[in-house]
Amino acid sequence: MLFDILTIFPELFSSPLQEGILRRAIGSGRIRVNLHNIRDYAVDKHKMTDDRPFGGGEGMVMKPEPLVAALDHVRSRGESARVILLSPRGGTYCQKTAERLAGYDRLILVCGRYEGVDERVARCCIDEEISIGDYILTGGELGAMVIIDSVTRLLPGVLGSEDSAANDTFSRGLLKHPQYTRPREFMGMDIPEVLLSGDHAEIEKYRFLESVRETLERRPELLAHVRFTGAELKLLKKAGMLEQVAAAGKDHG
Amino acid sequence: MLFDILTIFPELFSSPLQEGILRRAIGSGRIRVNLHNIRDYAVDKHKMTDDRPFGGGEGMVMKPEPLVAALDHVRSRGESARVILLSPRGGTYCQKTAERLAGYDRLILVCGRYEGVDERVARCCIDEEISIGDYILTGGELGAMVIIDSVTRLLPGVLGSEDSAANDTFSRGLLKHPQYTRPREFMGMDIPEVLLSGDHAEIEKYRFLESVRETLERRPELLAHVRFTGAELKLLKKAGMLEQVAAAGKDHG
Repeated sequence: MLFDILTIFPELFSSPLQEGILRRAIGSGRIRVNLHNIRDYAVDKHKMTDDRPFGGGEGMVMKPEPLVAALDHVRSRGESARVILLSPRGGTYCQKTAERLAGYDRLILVCGRYEGVDERVARCCIDEEISIGDYILTGGELGAMVIIDSVTRLLPGVLGSEDSAANDTFSRGLLKHPQYTRPREFMGMDIPEVLLSGDHAEIEKYRFLESVRETLERRPELLAHVRFTGAELKLLKKAGMLEQVAAAGKDHG
Repeated sequence: MLFDILTIFPELFSSPLQEGILRRAIGSGRIRVNLHNIRDYAVDKHKMTDDRPFGGGEGMVMKPEPLVAALDHVRSRGESARVILLSPRGGTYCQKTAERLAGYDRLILVCGRYEGVDERVARCCIDEEISIGDYILTGGELGAMVIIDSVTRLLPGVLGSEDSAANDTFSRGLLKHPQYTRPREFMGMDIPEVLLSGDHAEIEKYRFLESVRETLERRPELLAHVRFTGAELKLLKKAGMLEQVAAAGKDHG
């Protein structure tokens, strides 16, 4: 998979791409990340990439010409690509979006800065606007890193068993059950007995219930979109949690 | 403001801290970022920071001892701090959280990896768990960067006028109006006439309505929590948008 990044701060990406799973994915050729400096496509002698907004007001707006020139140049090389603008008004990024984006061969990620990009760029040249959350960052670069990271770990052959994607939080809409590792006793706190039982069916049941319990407590609105099997509903009933789960689903459905 | 980061990949932070607003905020002494490698606090000869989960299953869990030793050491130096664990099950980060965190003098950001940290660490030593969104990343490091970036830009004296926080998206719960800069005509697209009128009151009205229009179209659920003045309600009525806004507010209230 190929990621092309358009940014005025390409250097910002150097260390995050040199560690851990991204470094391995790049090393094995599973992904490629090309960085493009929008400033290289500015035509005036000062290499300006931003200017004051029409109509006045504080802040600067990214100029359309360098951005579109960069985009045209990058897009013209190689295969077709999905062009994404990182923007606070974009669709809220979630695991489903990551799964969808993992299906593309090539993504072009455009990082805005300041007060954003000229509206005409968004209208003419962008396939999709994405926001990684309801907060304001100094630029789209961290958003681009979030997309690269979350998409790359879903690609076949990227994750080893030490960091498997199979049982991720959000993969079925529930938060994950708590995890424990050695030592068995830590600061006077023991681990739940069942985890030592060796009874895998019981452990699975326990983890399922803990997962639902965490979700009920922390993110009940997620339960509106979770589907349970008959066996799971029976477990929830036995644990006295069925009514709570149904109520949470209804409140937020 | 002081940020202490606990991570097994401290190098990952080097380039994002060396650019733009974060570099300036560090240079001017407005923020300080200390990186701590959890691995330095591992006691066994292999410097292990993770281990297999009790009860079986794929993936690795971060061991409690090195993490808590690192936390104890860091916390013991200097003033009191809010300890935050980046975790997919945490409270969803938003602009309000950024504003709240900007009120602390010191934040300790703990970055989990793999399948997460041992539950007993979360229970004994963490003040708050935060998730930057409903997607899975390979670790908490990008989340820590998002917090540092979004909090730092809210601190007094950090932003210049070129990237003011005053009119941010989300600051009053509406998406931002579209922005335009020179040239006046680009790829056959002109800018809205009103922006050239020099009539600031008209421009403000236009931008307000565009802001509401963007929110209605892209994120109607945000409207449930926005408060409008009488003058704004009158504008919305005149523009024929009042009913839509009320309906969106009700649907998601």
